[in-house]
Amino acid sequence: MVIAESSLRKFTENIFKAMGCSTDHATLAADVLLAADLRGIDSHGVARLIGYVRLWEKKRINPTPNIKIVHETPTTATIDGDAGLGLVVAPFAMQVALEKAEKYGSAWIAIRNSNHFGIAGYHAMKAVEKDMIGFAVTNATPLVAPTFSNERMLGTNPMCYAFPAGKYPPVVVDMATSAAANGKLEIAQRSGEQVPEGWLQDKDGNYTTDPHALKTGGSLLPLGGDREHGSHKGFGLSGVVDILSGVLSGANYGPWVPPFVAFLDPVADPVGEGIGHFLGAMRVDGFRPVADFKSNMDTWIDRFKSASKINPDQGVVIPGEPEYQAQIERKKNGIPVVDAVVNDLNELAIKFNLNPLS
Amino acid sequence: MVIAESSLRKFTENIFKAMGCSTDHATLAADVLLAADLRGIDSHGVARLIGYVRLWEKKRINPTPNIKIVHETPTTATIDGDAGLGLVVAPFAMQVALEKAEKYGSAWIAIRNSNHFGIAGYHAMKAVEKDMIGFAVTNATPLVAPTFSNERMLGTNPMCYAFPAGKYPPVVVDMATSAAANGKLEIAQRSGEQVPEGWLQDKDGNYTTDPHALKTGGSLLPLGGDREHGSHKGFGLSGVVDILSGVLSGANYGPWVPPFVAFLDPVADPVGEGIGHFLGAMRVDGFRPVADFKSNMDTWIDRFKSASKINPDQGVVIPGEPEYQAQIERKKNGIPVVDAVVNDLNELAIKFNLNPLS
Repeated sequence: MVIAESSLRKFTENIFKAMGCSTDHATLAADVLLAADLRGIDSHGVARLIGYVRLWEKKRINPTPNIKIVHETPTTATIDGDAGLGLVVAPFAMQVALEKAEKYGSAWIAIRNSNHFGIAGYHAMKAVEKDMIGFAVTNATPLVAPTFSNERMLGTNPMCYAFPAGKYPPVVVDMATSAAANGKLEIAQRSGEQVPEGWLQDKDGNYTTDPHALKTGGSLLPLGGDREHGSHKGFGLSGVVDILSGVLSGANYGPWVPPFVAFLDPVADPVGEGIGHFLGAMRVDGFRPVADFKSNMDTWIDRFKSASKINPDQGVVIPGEPEYQAQIERKKNGIPVVDAVVNDLNELAIKFNLNPLS
Repeated sequence: MVIAESSLRKFTENIFKAMGCSTDHATLAADVLLAADLRGIDSHGVARLIGYVRLWEKKRINPTPNIKIVHETPTTATIDGDAGLGLVVAPFAMQVALEKAEKYGSAWIAIRNSNHFGIAGYHAMKAVEKDMIGFAVTNATPLVAPTFSNERMLGTNPMCYAFPAGKYPPVVVDMATSAAANGKLEIAQRSGEQVPEGWLQDKDGNYTTDPHALKTGGSLLPLGGDREHGSHKGFGLSGVVDILSGVLSGANYGPWVPPFVAFLDPVADPVGEGIGHFLGAMRVDGFRPVADFKSNMDTWIDRFKSASKINPDQGVVIPGEPEYQAQIERKKNGIPVVDAVVNDLNELAIKFNLNPLS
C-alpha cells in the first residue's frame, strides 16, 4: 500500500497520543519515524511503531517523561531521559547540543535512561540545518558478537556523521557498525532467501547463510566479517559507540542493554539505566568560513562522483544522496508500506479505537 | 637487530636534529616514532624515518615551522602547520585541544599544511593522561578506491578513539578505515606471500591476492571489502576522516592529498595546503565523575574479556591491550628492528655523519 506522507504522519501522531504522549511529543516522535520512511530506511520508520507500543504496554516506555540535564559544563552535558521514547529524548538532547555549540563552538551530550531513537541521521542532520557538523550514535539490543566470540555482546550500534554541503545535499554517513543491519536479515527471512557469508554466524561461531540463525543462538558479525578482513575494526567501532552511549552516560552497555523487543525482558542486574545515546555538534565556522567549507564540500562531492567506474553503469555513491533522492520521491508520490506493516498498524488502530489506514 | 629503547630514541633525535629541527622538536618527533615501535606498530615507527628525511630533502618538510592558530572559538581552532613534521604539528594541536577542553569541557582542532603524524593513537592518548576522551584522525596518501570505483581516491585514513579505564590500560581503538593497512601489504611483499581476497583489487577492479597489485594500478579496498559486506561503510568512514581532516581545515583532500613517498610529486593543482588532521578531547568529568566512569570501563572490559569463546585458546581482544603489552615487553627487552630498516637507518647515519646503530 502506498500512503501519502501526511496521512501516515497523522496516523502515527494519533498512535503516540493514544499512548498518552503530549501533542508536542507525538508530533516530534512521528516526525522522527516519518523521516526514516521518507528516506527509504523502512526498517526504522512506522514499521517499528508496534514495537514502541508493546514496550509502552510493558511499562518500559514512559509517555510523559521528565527529561532533564543531570550534569553539565559549557560544552558537555548528561541527560536523563526518564525512560521516555528515544524519539523525543534525543531531539531534546540535540537541542541542548545546538544551543551550547552556538555559544562555544561545539558541544557533546551523553544520554541515559532512554529508548530506541529511530535513525541516527535524523539527529545528526539537525546540526546541518544550523551549518554545523552533526554526530549521533546509540547502543542497542545485543545481537553482534565481538571478534573471536560467539556471544551477543553489542547492538548494531549505528554511527552517524552529517556535513552540510553547498549546491549538493548534505553528506550523511549513517551506518550500522555490524557487517549487515538487522533490517536486511528481516527482508531475507521474509523472502526465504539465504544471506551472504560474512553477515552472521551460528551458535558455535561458524559462518552461516541462514537468515534465521539469530533465532537459534547465532549472532551478527561486526563490520569486516572475520579477523582477516578487519572484524576487529568493526568490533572496535561498535565498542566506541557503546562506551560513548552507555559507559559515559550511565546507561546500560554491552550485553546489559535492554532489548527492543517487548517479549524479551531486560536483564535482572542492569549496570545502568535504559539505553544510551551520544550526540554532538560543531560549528563549521568554528574552523573556517561556512561558504569556503561548502564550496570545498561541493568540490569533494564532484570529484568522488567523477571517480573512475569499474562498471560504467554504477558510479560512486555519495553517502546520504540515495536517501535524499528517496525523500523527494516519497514526499511527492507517497510512502510504500508492506502488507505486514499495514496489518500491524491497523491492529494498533483497533486497539486504540482509531481509523484504520485506507 | 634488537635495540634498546634509549639508543633508538637518541639515534632518532639526532637524525631530526641533523635535519635542522630544534632540540625540543627533535625530542618530540622521536617520541612519536618511538611510541609506534614500542607499541608494536613497526610500520609507523623508525621504519618511516628515511621517508621523512627524503621529504625534507625535497623541501616538502619544513624543519623549523612557525605553527600557528589561524582561526578559533572557545572550543574549536584551525591550525596551520607551516609544512612542518606532523610529528610536531599534531602534538602542538593536541596541546591546544587539551587547554581549551580543560576550560570548556571539550575542544576540537582542524590542522592543515602538515605532514604524516605517526600513529593516531599517540595523539588521542595524550587526552587520556588528563582523564579525557581523545580523538585523532588524518588523511593520507591516496591508495584506497571507493566502492564501485577502481581509482585511488582516499588514504588508509586512520581513526582513533582513546578512553581512560581504571585498573586496566586505556581502551584505544586505532584503525585504518581500509580493509587492511598498507603495512600488512608490505610484509606480504617482502615475504612473497599472497594476501587474502578482499584486501585489494587490480587496476580493473577485480579482487586480487597479489600484494604487488598497488604497483600496477591497483587499489586497496575500504573496510568491508565489497558492497555486499559493507564496503560502502568503510568508504563512508574514510570520507568522514577526509572531510574532517582536509575539507574542514583547508588542507588537501581526496586524490589531491600529497603522497608520503618523496619519489612521487604532489599534484600540480592542489585544492588546499599539505595534508590535514583533526584532533579532539572531551573531559570525562564533563559527563560524570571520573571514578564512576573508570569503574564502569573496568566492568565493560571484564565483561568483554569473559565473553564466550569460539576457540578456547583465543578470547576477545580489548582494543589497545596488545599494544600496551608490547610496550611493557619492548621497554624491558628492546625493540626488534628488521635488517632492511637497520640498513636504512645506517644509510641516514652516514649521510649525516652520525654513529651507526650497533
